Amino acid sequence: MASAPFFALVAGAGPGTGRAVALKFAKTYPVVVLARSPDSYRDIVAEIKQAGGQALGISADIINADSVNSAFETIKKELPGSKLAAAIYNVSGGFVKTPFLELKLDEVDNGLDVGVRGFFRFAQNSLPLLLDSVSGAPHPPSLLITGATASVKGSAQFGSFAAGKFALRALGQSLSREFGPQGVHVAHVVVDGIIDIPRTKNFTTASSAEDAKLKPEAIAETYWHLHTQHRSAFTQELDIRPYVENY
Amino acid sequence: MASAPFFALVAGAGPGTGRAVALKFAKTYPVVVLARSPDSYRDIVAEIKQAGGQALGISADIINADSVNSAFETIKKELPGSKLAAAIYNVSGGFVKTPFLELKLDEVDNGLDVGVRGFFRFAQNSLPLLLDSVSGAPHPPSLLITGATASVKGSAQFGSFAAGKFALRALGQSLSREFGPQGVHVAHVVVDGIIDIPRTKNFTTASSAEDAKLKPEAIAETYWHLHTQHRSAFTQELDIRPYVENY
Amino acid sequence: MASAPFFALVAGAGPGTGRAVALKFAKTYPVVVLARSPDSYRDIVAEIKQAGGQALGISADIINADSVNSAFETIKKELPGSKLAAAIYNVSGGFVKTPFLELKLDEVDNGLDVGVRGFFRFAQNSLPLLLDSVSGAPHPPSLLITGATASVKGSAQFGSFAAGKFALRALGQSLSREFGPQGVHVAHVVVDGIIDIPRTKNFTTASSAEDAKLKPEAIAETYWHLHTQHRSAFTQELDIRPYVENY
Amino acid sequence: MASAPFFALVAGAGPGTGRAVALKFAKTYPVVVLARSPDSYRDIVAEIKQAGGQALGISADIINADSVNSAFETIKKELPGSKLAAAIYNVSGGFVKTPFLELKLDEVDNGLDVGVRGFFRFAQNSLPLLLDSVSGAPHPPSLLITGATASVKGSAQFGSFAAGKFALRALGQSLSREFGPQGVHVAHVVVDGIIDIPRTKNFTTASSAEDAKLKPEAIAETYWHLHTQHRSAFTQELDIRPYVENY
Repeated sequence: MASAPFFALVAGAGPGTGRAVALKFAKTYPVVVLARSPDSYRDIVAEIKQAGGQALGISADIINADSVNSAFETIKKELPGSKLAAAIYNVSGGFVKTPFLELKLDEVDNGLDVGVRGFFRFAQNSLPLLLDSVSGAPHPPSLLITGATASVKGSAQFGSFAAGKFALRALGQSLSREFGPQGVHVAHVVVDGIIDIPRTKNFTTASSAEDAKLKPEAIAETYWHLHTQHRSAFTQELDIRPYVENY
Repeated sequence: MASAPFFALVAGAGPGTGRAVALKFAKTYPVVVLARSPDSYRDIVAEIKQAGGQALGISADIINADSVNSAFETIKKELPGSKLAAAIYNVSGGFVKTPFLELKLDEVDNGLDVGVRGFFRFAQNSLPLLLDSVSGAPHPPSLLITGATASVKGSAQFGSFAAGKFALRALGQSLSREFGPQGVHVAHVVVDGIIDIPRTKNFTTASSAEDAKLKPEAIAETYWHLHTQHRSAFTQELDIRPYVENY
Repeated sequence: MASAPFFALVAGAGPGTGRAVALKFAKTYPVVVLARSPDSYRDIVAEIKQAGGQALGISADIINADSVNSAFETIKKELPGSKLAAAIYNVSGGFVKTPFLELKLDEVDNGLDVGVRGFFRFAQNSLPLLLDSVSGAPHPPSLLITGATASVKGSAQFGSFAAGKFALRALGQSLSREFGPQGVHVAHVVVDGIIDIPRTKNFTTASSAEDAKLKPEAIAETYWHLHTQHRSAFTQELDIRPYVENY
Repeated sequence: MASAPFFALVAGAGPGTGRAVALKFAKTYPVVVLARSPDSYRDIVAEIKQAGGQALGISADIINADSVNSAFETIKKELPGSKLAAAIYNVSGGFVKTPFLELKLDEVDNGLDVGVRGFFRFAQNSLPLLLDSVSGAPHPPSLLITGATASVKGSAQFGSFAAGKFALRALGQSLSREFGPQGVHVAHVVVDGIIDIPRTKNFTTASSAEDAKLKPEAIAETYWHLHTQHRSAFTQELDIRPYVENY
């Protein structure tokens, strides 16, 4: 990938938020997309290139330290001299509603792999690069985190998922307070509702109205807005949900 | 003012958020500015016109029903056929930190005048117009509300101010749940920090760093973003604060 | 009423929380019950006396300054030398789910009468008495406030009720931060659910299970616990709801 | 230990909350105290016995599955036929304020050991016993969880501690919603302030006033109150803090 002064990094590509955010940020920056398998990022990279942008897909398993470190090494090699403008953490583990007494510790721990340990690795690799971009970047370097309803409410039989999401929110708040004053914008987005992707096509929503599921492109607009906020008016947290959502 | 298909309405003009929001929205819509006295809106209207936009100032006292109703009559007469795209409630009463036992009921009630009764009048006049804009408007018609730290925390000796701000937040939540499904976007902005205007020039901030006060133009960008959010991804509440703010 | 060293004061008597709290506190203190009409407190006073306690009912309209002041004059006269151990604000206005555009300003303002102005009068009269009890009282003098689900959530078509309840919560927080360090315990109870009284007999609950409505006596136990908390471990806010409640 | 119909279980003994809660509950129930080392529970057990109560100390490392399972086996053997009335999770890892970029993943993971995995093991072993006590117990069987300021706020350089505490709060909420309707009371206590124990003797508090640190005995009173709440009026969360605390 031709080197450019600033690039964006999206961890957790997929057909929804990850893809849309990558496409949105690719209008301004070369975008690096991290995903466990090339199947997840291949189309996104192609789409960005077709639209005239630059993109690089890297296979990386967020829950594996070596894999994450190696991805950041690849970035350094492939984008020499390029600086990080925005890092988006959009990784989400799968989860199944499970009675607590049937839950295995492994399942709980898997939630923490994504919500805590994976984010920890991603943030520890990204923050030094973001700090290094503070002077000179067109917008305050940003670390944007995807949350969910379960980030703020522990529902019955969703304890494992909520534990990871609550913990991720805690880390985002803490990083915001530590790195905000150094010029890095850390923000957390509570996505409250079903995202409109092929996999959720038959999911039932509270309302049968049009646009009752979150459009990934609409989500991406808000991520971009967060990235472009002036440092005198940073948002730490916001919610987004369909207009017809019950909440 | 020449009629245009859609206009924006800002209640509570002044040198800070009100002025900046009016200027920002004036790049797209003719803007009507409500303020108690022409002294508050005169410069804003002139500035908008000078920049090639359209603006109309109307004197209105938000705590006086007749005055508010008459302002909406004036709007109807001056902008025939024009529809309301966005209504911004940015009215804030003055307040002084006061020991509770020295507080007069009148002072408390004045806070409610702005936070509750004034907003009630503004919203009852605006919402039918916003509903009427749902089909056809370029963006979901929006009712945007300016909150403060006191909207979410009742500090010592700020009870009167907080009571009005908490109540205003309650109304915003309630309207969001009632009018969201009808297509109107109701959002509440928690402005946490000191706004950078001439009057606050000598106010002390937690940090002596640059940009330690909220730039009104930065606030306005976020209001505009809220207005342009797609209805599948509405934000109900967000905070904005300077990067160096203690919170 | 024979004078005693410390007494309790309950504003907003009625068949539910008010009555139960009065009965509970009457096991330790003489209790003064304020209500708009003797019909509301007559039975409570009789019940307390029958159980061997002391009680005094006073007609007072919380939304009328003269009436409130006069009630406190009566208290001073009837309980000479007695000090205030606990003041409980349990006044709640009626409310009806109403579409916002059909709401009258008067209805909103009535909500504020109870939630803000009434409480203001009650607190301004009570706090000097509570401060005067700090040294010598068996438990930290307490100002206990009854909240509701609407204190923390503005539901659709409940804006008016929520505005008053949010504002009341704001005042409670503020007073807690101002008077806590002076030794007065200000606490707010979020009662989330239907209270089990004759009037709600036919109200539907989420579950048909036994005890799906809050027992007033159970609520009163928690008020008493709040009153008896040591000053090194004050609770400012708690929720109470039936075990089967959806939330 | 002589078998008794109901017993209480405290995980995380120590000189503060754990000891005081054990002593308080021992006035009514035989108490089993779990701690990593006998040094932590020896004095507590002796104190309870000296006061005429029954107590059993078991060495158990909450972050070790075998150790936890073995402790519950020991309980079954030592208290045949006895049922669990209350399980208190009061385990807290140590933590040091650490800049995020200096944090090791192990330190973060240690926080999760206590906040998530340890609690998971404790809850999975306790909840079947608590469910088994629903019918017949003098009070609703209770699972009480000790939280902290970091349960609701992620402060700078406290990310690791907050992640564990947020996650623990999530699990508590989720269990409350799942097991509440089955009659088990799950409550979370946000302890906001410094606890008055020998180790904190020289810790500075915001105020130099008396009682500026939480008395463990005062905390224990609130745990006992939560345990004795009627099922029609369960508290899910409350805060406790010294009257002079800044918050």
